[in-house]
Amino acid sequence: MSIVVVGTMAFDAIKTPFGQTDKIIGGAATYIAYSASYFHKPINLVSIVGGDFDFAEMENLKSRGADTTGVEIKQDGKSFFWSGSYHMDMNSRDTLITDLNVLTEFNPILPESYQNSEFLLLGNIDPNLQLNVINQMSTRPKLIVLDTMNFWMDIMMDTFLEVIAKVDVLTINDSEARQLSGEYSLVKAANKILAMGPKYLIIKKGENGALLFHGNQVFSAPALPLEDVFDPTGAGDTFAGGFIGHLAKTGDISFDNMKRAIIYGSAMASFCVEKFGTERLKNLSEQEIANRVQEFVKLTNFDIAS
Amino acid sequence: MSIVVVGTMAFDAIKTPFGQTDKIIGGAATYIAYSASYFHKPINLVSIVGGDFDFAEMENLKSRGADTTGVEIKQDGKSFFWSGSYHMDMNSRDTLITDLNVLTEFNPILPESYQNSEFLLLGNIDPNLQLNVINQMSTRPKLIVLDTMNFWMDIMMDTFLEVIAKVDVLTINDSEARQLSGEYSLVKAANKILAMGPKYLIIKKGENGALLFHGNQVFSAPALPLEDVFDPTGAGDTFAGGFIGHLAKTGDISFDNMKRAIIYGSAMASFCVEKFGTERLKNLSEQEIANRVQEFVKLTNFDIAS
Repeated sequence: MSIVVVGTMAFDAIKTPFGQTDKIIGGAATYIAYSASYFHKPINLVSIVGGDFDFAEMENLKSRGADTTGVEIKQDGKSFFWSGSYHMDMNSRDTLITDLNVLTEFNPILPESYQNSEFLLLGNIDPNLQLNVINQMSTRPKLIVLDTMNFWMDIMMDTFLEVIAKVDVLTINDSEARQLSGEYSLVKAANKILAMGPKYLIIKKGENGALLFHGNQVFSAPALPLEDVFDPTGAGDTFAGGFIGHLAKTGDISFDNMKRAIIYGSAMASFCVEKFGTERLKNLSEQEIANRVQEFVKLTNFDIAS
Repeated sequence: MSIVVVGTMAFDAIKTPFGQTDKIIGGAATYIAYSASYFHKPINLVSIVGGDFDFAEMENLKSRGADTTGVEIKQDGKSFFWSGSYHMDMNSRDTLITDLNVLTEFNPILPESYQNSEFLLLGNIDPNLQLNVINQMSTRPKLIVLDTMNFWMDIMMDTFLEVIAKVDVLTINDSEARQLSGEYSLVKAANKILAMGPKYLIIKKGENGALLFHGNQVFSAPALPLEDVFDPTGAGDTFAGGFIGHLAKTGDISFDNMKRAIIYGSAMASFCVEKFGTERLKNLSEQEIANRVQEFVKLTNFDIAS
């Protein structure tokens, strides 16, 4: 089973209370690909970069199982660049620079070799492009997961609603769920959002974990309490990569397996935030991941006879 | 095994986005006693009220297993009165009125019949009074649990530190843990606070559940996602009551049993917020509580082979 991942590949410059970086590799598709690569290959990337991109990083992704046939390289363009500065609490940040560059020309074309992929993960981009990709799939994937953000609700709610109606799993954060539904209670918010089309809703709550809603079922996963969150950039994308990676690896999209996928995604996100950018995602061992997942088991496990 | 509960008994007038109450019964000891009464009796109360108190409520508490020998009644005084108004998010509130009344004269005297109680729960009151009660116990209880708030850190940090050094379990909320430790990371905060004396630290996170820290062990419990939080008043006290009630019922103060106690406490708190004041805590059935606890099992349960 293959995974198609559509999203940005970019440069980021990040400032946190612990330090700052020059331009390092970032973008949703990059984080997703690194994270998913620990579970399943191939990862069929659809993205766009400029001639200034770090092609050693691209090769590294390929060596980890990414297929970059669908990554358009605009030799005379510059890659998407984002710069941000995190506040002391790491839950809020200021965007310093957003240079869209080649992203303004992004017109994702699904390579023929990506057809029949069973898993499609649409990273946070213009909902028109997300729709466009769904429409290019000649066979509907077994599972479509879509990540997005409040920005698109603000400027193109109609298209936003059109695309989320076509997906299986929607991932947004708690404030976005409240904005989209107009409900403060996350249970009421989830009920309204599930009525908009997605069969599953994942509400990401940062250091407070994540909630998975499906029909009248709910699953709550904690985030791992960490001594330090060094850099939260990409944590949500890394979560999504682990989530879809586990589902693709097992081929099982039951609610019970989605719960496991959320734990794997959360474990991957807990690695991501330990270092700047994608650094911590490049050389994890299977044992490290297994140990981290067991930390989640210990963290949440209690025994009450039913 | 008996439980001694020291805390306020009061009148509250509460306004929420869903409605408002006249003066209804409240106070930490009241919520704790109602909640603990579903698990264990007797509950030896130490408190103070005025001649205006609702003595039918006092009789109701007695019928549920509360011993009120230690409740001083100042016939010519007025009971502590608090009035507050919750914001739409239910996580923040404005205090409208705080009339301490007889609470300014509170000098808790432990009745002889309460000696040798094995569980002591010190509700949120002046740390000097909490210390005073600990010193009156001729035999140190098996477990001392202390609940408190930022107010006491602000005005009497020395006494605050003196009393928390003497307890087994400290319960505070996340912002208080950050204030007390000077650390944003709750893991770092917990490590610093455990070094101040308590063997166990419970960090309450409202709708995001609670964390239990002990040595290098951590347990994360979610709050039950609810359609409506009708009135959060007393939820923390109700949590503490269920927590100590389960521990006293079982006599087991192991970390594993404290995890269960946190789930029972969380279940009781989830009932508390469904109606105004203590209303929902007055007529629960064993089956309702067991069903609610099973909702926590379903909410958190996932299965990954170790």
